[in-house]
Amino acid sequence: MGVVKQNIDRADASVIAGLGAAGVATVHEAQGRIGLMSSRMRPIQMDKAIAGSAVTISAPPGDNWMIHVAIEQLQPGDIMVLAPTAPCDMGYFGDLLATSALARGCRALVIDAGVRDLRDLRAMGFLVWSTAVSAQGTVKETVGSVNVPVVCAGAAINPGDVIIADDDGVCVVRREDAETVLAAAKARLAAEEAKRAKLASGELGLDLYGMRDRLAAKGLRYD
Amino acid sequence: MGVVKQNIDRADASVIAGLGAAGVATVHEAQGRIGLMSSRMRPIQMDKAIAGSAVTISAPPGDNWMIHVAIEQLQPGDIMVLAPTAPCDMGYFGDLLATSALARGCRALVIDAGVRDLRDLRAMGFLVWSTAVSAQGTVKETVGSVNVPVVCAGAAINPGDVIIADDDGVCVVRREDAETVLAAAKARLAAEEAKRAKLASGELGLDLYGMRDRLAAKGLRYD
Amino acid sequence: MGVVKQNIDRADASVIAGLGAAGVATVHEAQGRIGLMSSRMRPIQMDKAIAGSAVTISAPPGDNWMIHVAIEQLQPGDIMVLAPTAPCDMGYFGDLLATSALARGCRALVIDAGVRDLRDLRAMGFLVWSTAVSAQGTVKETVGSVNVPVVCAGAAINPGDVIIADDDGVCVVRREDAETVLAAAKARLAAEEAKRAKLASGELGLDLYGMRDRLAAKGLRYD
Amino acid sequence: MGVVKQNIDRADASVIAGLGAAGVATVHEAQGRIGLMSSRMRPIQMDKAIAGSAVTISAPPGDNWMIHVAIEQLQPGDIMVLAPTAPCDMGYFGDLLATSALARGCRALVIDAGVRDLRDLRAMGFLVWSTAVSAQGTVKETVGSVNVPVVCAGAAINPGDVIIADDDGVCVVRREDAETVLAAAKARLAAEEAKRAKLASGELGLDLYGMRDRLAAKGLRYD
Amino acid sequence: MGVVKQNIDRADASVIAGLGAAGVATVHEAQGRIGLMSSRMRPIQMDKAIAGSAVTISAPPGDNWMIHVAIEQLQPGDIMVLAPTAPCDMGYFGDLLATSALARGCRALVIDAGVRDLRDLRAMGFLVWSTAVSAQGTVKETVGSVNVPVVCAGAAINPGDVIIADDDGVCVVRREDAETVLAAAKARLAAEEAKRAKLASGELGLDLYGMRDRLAAKGLRYD
Amino acid sequence: MGVVKQNIDRADASVIAGLGAAGVATVHEAQGRIGLMSSRMRPIQMDKAIAGSAVTISAPPGDNWMIHVAIEQLQPGDIMVLAPTAPCDMGYFGDLLATSALARGCRALVIDAGVRDLRDLRAMGFLVWSTAVSAQGTVKETVGSVNVPVVCAGAAINPGDVIIADDDGVCVVRREDAETVLAAAKARLAAEEAKRAKLASGELGLDLYGMRDRLAAKGLRYD
Repeated sequence: MGVVKQNIDRADASVIAGLGAAGVATVHEAQGRIGLMSSRMRPIQMDKAIAGSAVTISAPPGDNWMIHVAIEQLQPGDIMVLAPTAPCDMGYFGDLLATSALARGCRALVIDAGVRDLRDLRAMGFLVWSTAVSAQGTVKETVGSVNVPVVCAGAAINPGDVIIADDDGVCVVRREDAETVLAAAKARLAAEEAKRAKLASGELGLDLYGMRDRLAAKGLRYD
Repeated sequence: MGVVKQNIDRADASVIAGLGAAGVATVHEAQGRIGLMSSRMRPIQMDKAIAGSAVTISAPPGDNWMIHVAIEQLQPGDIMVLAPTAPCDMGYFGDLLATSALARGCRALVIDAGVRDLRDLRAMGFLVWSTAVSAQGTVKETVGSVNVPVVCAGAAINPGDVIIADDDGVCVVRREDAETVLAAAKARLAAEEAKRAKLASGELGLDLYGMRDRLAAKGLRYD
Repeated sequence: MGVVKQNIDRADASVIAGLGAAGVATVHEAQGRIGLMSSRMRPIQMDKAIAGSAVTISAPPGDNWMIHVAIEQLQPGDIMVLAPTAPCDMGYFGDLLATSALARGCRALVIDAGVRDLRDLRAMGFLVWSTAVSAQGTVKETVGSVNVPVVCAGAAINPGDVIIADDDGVCVVRREDAETVLAAAKARLAAEEAKRAKLASGELGLDLYGMRDRLAAKGLRYD
Repeated sequence: MGVVKQNIDRADASVIAGLGAAGVATVHEAQGRIGLMSSRMRPIQMDKAIAGSAVTISAPPGDNWMIHVAIEQLQPGDIMVLAPTAPCDMGYFGDLLATSALARGCRALVIDAGVRDLRDLRAMGFLVWSTAVSAQGTVKETVGSVNVPVVCAGAAINPGDVIIADDDGVCVVRREDAETVLAAAKARLAAEEAKRAKLASGELGLDLYGMRDRLAAKGLRYD
Repeated sequence: MGVVKQNIDRADASVIAGLGAAGVATVHEAQGRIGLMSSRMRPIQMDKAIAGSAVTISAPPGDNWMIHVAIEQLQPGDIMVLAPTAPCDMGYFGDLLATSALARGCRALVIDAGVRDLRDLRAMGFLVWSTAVSAQGTVKETVGSVNVPVVCAGAAINPGDVIIADDDGVCVVRREDAETVLAAAKARLAAEEAKRAKLASGELGLDLYGMRDRLAAKGLRYD
Repeated sequence: MGVVKQNIDRADASVIAGLGAAGVATVHEAQGRIGLMSSRMRPIQMDKAIAGSAVTISAPPGDNWMIHVAIEQLQPGDIMVLAPTAPCDMGYFGDLLATSALARGCRALVIDAGVRDLRDLRAMGFLVWSTAVSAQGTVKETVGSVNVPVVCAGAAINPGDVIIADDDGVCVVRREDAETVLAAAKARLAAEEAKRAKLASGELGLDLYGMRDRLAAKGLRYD
């Protein structure tokens, strides 16, 4: 049943970089609050952000064979996204696989399962968002697929979609929507900049957003 | 049903500072092991501690409108305490609201729900204890209340109560008990100081606390 | 029912040090993927590793009396391993007990329950792997046992077994297997070193491990 | 620190019975969506409902001594509500305590912890809502309190408040609000009866509640 | 952003019935172990099974407005599948909505959130698989979508796909694969029937499946 | 690494039957509150109890091959106990394996993982205690062991130990302790019988157990 799709389309590098600079929270808002992975997905490092094109991996529970297959498909700037076909917290990925991925120009992994060798991964600058940390090794017995649509931590992802990841979590933007979403994200950031200055100067959100009348209409009472 | 109580009593600033210096574990013991929030409540930063007066927020699940209302009620040194009326891990709070709260002299939030913009919050020095991290945005459709009694992460809190938060979690001291608890906490700290020196010099707790006879009476056997 | 076994055998210090240097993931693989604690067991500090001989503690839920008893049994290089007899997230251990343990030459605790005084513990360099953080104090009412076989976070441990702990979690090696496992771990590390160099130079795991034929035989298809 | 309040006020028996007949979901709505316990609180039996006056128990984790104290305070129709002072899934309650409670006219327990002897409890007709099932026994070493305010599974409860429990969970109504809430619940039930008949006949909620215009105004599009 | 797709294709009724008769475990195997929802998804009733065409609902957390919209789109034999856009355990659905759905010929709901009125739903014969039970009500403030692709409890679902649900959980079969999967399921059931008779007569799986040589080759040792 | 121990000692059948009649809660108390599995271990049926000799299975995560191997080792009255070597909620066991086990006289399974075919298993009268329900199938690729010591849901179990299971959970008694524990359980049941009659007649536990003085000494105050 396993299949490897070798040629996938990717978004424009400058669009990907722009989405990464905007960050997960802004991008998620800018595209109408879709595409966010579960809050179970957490970074193993602190204060790092990245964006890249998804090379997706559908792997059996407890079997990391397909990561080797996926690495051959990586291009610089890609992010591997691994979704096990059943829940699993085992350690699919460690420093040897990270070494191999880095050699292909891939600097991050998003995985709805576990990873290991945390100190090494952090020292190498290889970024990981995972739902578990575990030293438990996996087998190489059953084939899965690479670059097929997957559901990872509750989000549907197609190969070549843009992955944005930071301390707030992980968000996916469909490749074909990437430019539109980036424009919306930039507009949002510009608008926030003006608001931030006003709020910092002490203006209240109640006044800045004109909320007082609507709150009163909804029955809010001050004692 | 929404109500904003505008005038609340707060504990004396020096008492609050004293409780903050004693820390969560000591204060919790000093007041008879009550008032501790669930261990699900974790800091987004490391090695920081704070104490302040609670401005409470009762908010609908997935609706952060009341935070804007609460910010107007803040005084320097206050801590916002948000309890959703149903379990929710969405991101109620980010850098814009933190900017606004900081402008009012509030430096911390305790929330039984999610927050976002973690890097910005840490960079701003705004402290957060939360039960989730999530980029998922909320709506502004339903009113809640500010400065009413709430249950937050298993602890009952009245507006103006003293909140103490550090890496061990979050504890609440009733405003009217604050002075008494501070005295007990100071006594406890002093007693611990003497014990610490003896333990560091190699004296055993078994001897320092005179436990050997009671252990033998309870049937402990040495082989 | 409580019993304290006073004389336990320990592994050779150089063997323990070697296992610590190899790390949890390598040791776990080297002994055939047994002895790993649950991924619920997490460090309170970052980027630290240790190995030592287990002094085991079987304690009632919410009762830390036996830690005082265990401390008398500690020798330099030991690691305390506490397993409550029922699930419990209370704070069994804090800075005073750590002070006492350090005075005996013990520098780490592994506990399937909670700890408190995190900042102090980190400042003292006392290492902790726990399944919870909680300021909630415990009582001293019921005896348990020291240096009996325990099950901690899913792993069976005998007193004197070797505990290895780092950012990936905690693993136990039976005392009588320690030398054999160390030899296997060293062989594994040497083999990995050669592989790491090849992978870093861009050679693919598919080729390095000769996987292509077996993948094809299992039906993997390239599109 | 332990205290037993011996004389508490209870709501009128007919009001309690009326709230029980309305059920948890209706009562919760009728009082403005407050007072619901966490969805972790589940019945050990199926298709049973009850309402009664709360006799509250604040108990240390793993210590069921206060249940014996509480039983003396029970009157016919009361429901025991036990909140441990720290999270605990041990079995505080079984068939002997149920026998004793039944002898006092109490037919139900609500507990944010575990129970045991499930088959016996179901055979006796003693109803339980709990957050765990566990055979793990507790000790009788530390005093707690009876008939003090508690927080149980996220809800604040005062002694004498009305507890309503069925397959949907557990809700509390403040004693002083019981009559008002019952009136609101009855109005709600009457209104629902008319709606149910219309919906059963095939009328759509979209028309019955006049939702079409508001949906269109909010931008809902039909393709 | 909300959209309602009014015309969706459905699988043939006899194919749907056949998949329902085969059951979740068999269908899941027959289509290559894909399409299974998370084991968090549990039935509120016992020993019931169903299959039907998915009418999908993408709803904001804590907002059940779209269920009213979806009910208008229902045809006899459909199953509603609701996926909130953020995790939520509130009670989206109860007896009034079930009355309305039954009037349209829909007899089941699959929801990655909570439901209420359990006794009524069971008495009405309306079947529910949910990830929570909660009396907590929702609002009607924000539009979502009906009959768009959703991710529900980890499975990707398109409108018109076949949903199979029983005590083992919930599985989805793509509409366009339904006939093929049914044929595979039937073949599997036939093969199992022969095996069941042999196993019941005492023949061992080791012999029936010819496993002994492969086990020996993998190194299994008998002591 | 896989091993099958073919000859194991079992406890006397009448002792096993006696422990089963006493039930989990009583047996657990009678042997000093040890040997209880985690409260995550729940029955798939209601109001059933059993006791038998453990045939233990150590299986890789997601691999059920060893169950076939174990079935050959079963004798009438045995209970299979499966512990995966890493956490796993997949469905290791269904109606075909149950058919085979029943043919050998085994009527129950205890498993720290998932099972499927629930309706069939209940209809066949095959009893299961598991930590999950899942239709997700497993592979047959990696050998494990049969009749070796395992840790299952937090309890250490040797082959031939006595397993007692009912609605309260699962408890293990070491084979060599079985007679002693049965005697203690019987004494406990006899003592409870007398107490039950007194409690049913209205005598309070406070008086029956003579608790009043000790409570007063511990400071309990009546208001």
